Amino acid sequence: MKALVYQGPGRKAWVDKPQPEIVKPTDAIVRITRTTICGTDLHILKGDVPTVEAGRTLGHEGVGVIEAVGSAVTSFRPGDRVLISCISACGRCANCKQQLYAHCSDGGWILGHLIDGTQAEYVRIPHADNSLHHIPAGADEEALVMLSDILPTGLEIGVLNGQVKPGDTVLIVGAGPVGMAALLTAQFYSPARLIMVDMDENRLAAARRLGATHTLNAAQGAVIEQIMALSGGRGVDVAIEAVGVPATFDICQEVVAPGGHIANVGVHGVPVSLHIEKLWLRNITLTTGLVNTSTTPMLLQVVQAGRVAPGSLITHHFPLQQILEAYRVFANAAEENAMKVILVAD
Amino acid sequence: MKALVYQGPGRKAWVDKPQPEIVKPTDAIVRITRTTICGTDLHILKGDVPTVEAGRTLGHEGVGVIEAVGSAVTSFRPGDRVLISCISACGRCANCKQQLYAHCSDGGWILGHLIDGTQAEYVRIPHADNSLHHIPAGADEEALVMLSDILPTGLEIGVLNGQVKPGDTVLIVGAGPVGMAALLTAQFYSPARLIMVDMDENRLAAARRLGATHTLNAAQGAVIEQIMALSGGRGVDVAIEAVGVPATFDICQEVVAPGGHIANVGVHGVPVSLHIEKLWLRNITLTTGLVNTSTTPMLLQVVQAGRVAPGSLITHHFPLQQILEAYRVFANAAEENAMKVILVAD
Repeated sequence: MKALVYQGPGRKAWVDKPQPEIVKPTDAIVRITRTTICGTDLHILKGDVPTVEAGRTLGHEGVGVIEAVGSAVTSFRPGDRVLISCISACGRCANCKQQLYAHCSDGGWILGHLIDGTQAEYVRIPHADNSLHHIPAGADEEALVMLSDILPTGLEIGVLNGQVKPGDTVLIVGAGPVGMAALLTAQFYSPARLIMVDMDENRLAAARRLGATHTLNAAQGAVIEQIMALSGGRGVDVAIEAVGVPATFDICQEVVAPGGHIANVGVHGVPVSLHIEKLWLRNITLTTGLVNTSTTPMLLQVVQAGRVAPGSLITHHFPLQQILEAYRVFANAAEENAMKVILVAD
Repeated sequence: MKALVYQGPGRKAWVDKPQPEIVKPTDAIVRITRTTICGTDLHILKGDVPTVEAGRTLGHEGVGVIEAVGSAVTSFRPGDRVLISCISACGRCANCKQQLYAHCSDGGWILGHLIDGTQAEYVRIPHADNSLHHIPAGADEEALVMLSDILPTGLEIGVLNGQVKPGDTVLIVGAGPVGMAALLTAQFYSPARLIMVDMDENRLAAARRLGATHTLNAAQGAVIEQIMALSGGRGVDVAIEAVGVPATFDICQEVVAPGGHIANVGVHGVPVSLHIEKLWLRNITLTTGLVNTSTTPMLLQVVQAGRVAPGSLITHHFPLQQILEAYRVFANAAEENAMKVILVAD
């Protein structure tokens, strides 16, 4: 089969690889029908994730069809159409029993990281009963690729960690795919204001189409002053950091209201200076996290009910064999006006 | 009357002042019977709290007897014995309606800060109906002075913000009065391990008497390794920072388990370096805060039931007129083996 393989910092290739086989009784083999590229894959390619070894097939998102299952798999059988969760979870360790699937002692984020991933014709999924979801009949399978990672990440690590509630003023810094996922899912909870900050006018225009009530271009300066004005001088109830650099974290800590929440979603490479000398008495809550995908069943219900349209985040399509071109477009998202790219394998 | 007055950085005096009078209909005048000194008072005296003006009577803790009430006060009358909360709250602003009394738009921590405080023979308490508590008949009034600030602070900002639950491994860094209050109140929730870290052997011995299951002297080094070993390599479920310097904050961020909580209680004067490049994927929650005193009624119940003995934190007594000597002892707590000092006015 063909697979997109990481070959060390800055290098990737679309190569022939042996088709994966069942290794443990709890495994399933899935034939990929749709997959996508994540910002995390770009981080890996830069060499930012040293736990990824050369030769690893990338990718942790996708939908497909069950090809084979191990003897212990009871919820899926060959031919079933499935959504692949970016998190593999045994369901039985101490962390799993607290729904902390991201920190499963025999799983977590391993796909396209510690084991071969979904940017291939076939993928092996460990702990299949806990790591796959049936695709409802009649569903838009392509849109469900957004439920592998970005929609639960935006919801769990942004919106739920941030405790967005009706009437809140919510700030989202970063209008990339995960920031947009937070924007879409924050609307489940009826905030009063949804302020999106980015430096790309195309993305800000997209944010307005997807429900942002206010957009601010950080390249034009005075963002903090504008956010404070929009929140009546009080600051925001929830600040969702969806970039992962000190400057965007700083915006969040400057504008959070007393009693407010900073929900960090961004993947950071360096420490930040936390202004605890100002924040110690402001009763704020700061959260971090990798998605647990515990909300995936709920998101499937919301999508099926037509209350959110995750397909709205898809801007480009490519045949799977053109994945190198898809990477080029995704890595130049601003010039290409790209959000999520879909790779089609059937 | 006599009062302990801040006269600018490094200077204080026990002086004559006019007795306070009712200013607003919601005020009460309380004759102080017992008061104490807080670490925050020492911060003020160092000049660390520039919002305190010279001439201000210090102190935000105490018990006493109602001398007079304004026309709008309905829950108290002259002669009632009362506990003074360190937080004054109108009860009706947007923050108060979320129990965020620390950020009351017409109150918060103002006693001994923006208005004259409790280290005096008499004090004016604004919003008396929401800022005073009746002392139950037969109660140990002196022990209740611990409920003005430190016990609710340890409980709300340490234990409740940290979400201590049965079976948890809880770390408390700093065995001062508020760290000890967290130690006492954490036991309401039956943690499995209560690890106290300090550099003072006397305080660590006191922590063992008050319920710490393990104590570590940070002066002897290797604290992080020892905490990791005590938690089976997982890290702690809850780390309560009760000092307020970067080194103690660092211990907390190094040892927090995936899914764990860092509850900052310490008063910080400088920023800290937050290792978000490691923590972003560890699903941690960091909280800060000034006490709301929303748990004071609950604490009064627990004290009356004999489930906690806050008087165990009192090490010294002085007549109120000897407050300068009490300050000297409290400021040299290690040499004097002092925790909380009580000033007796009746």
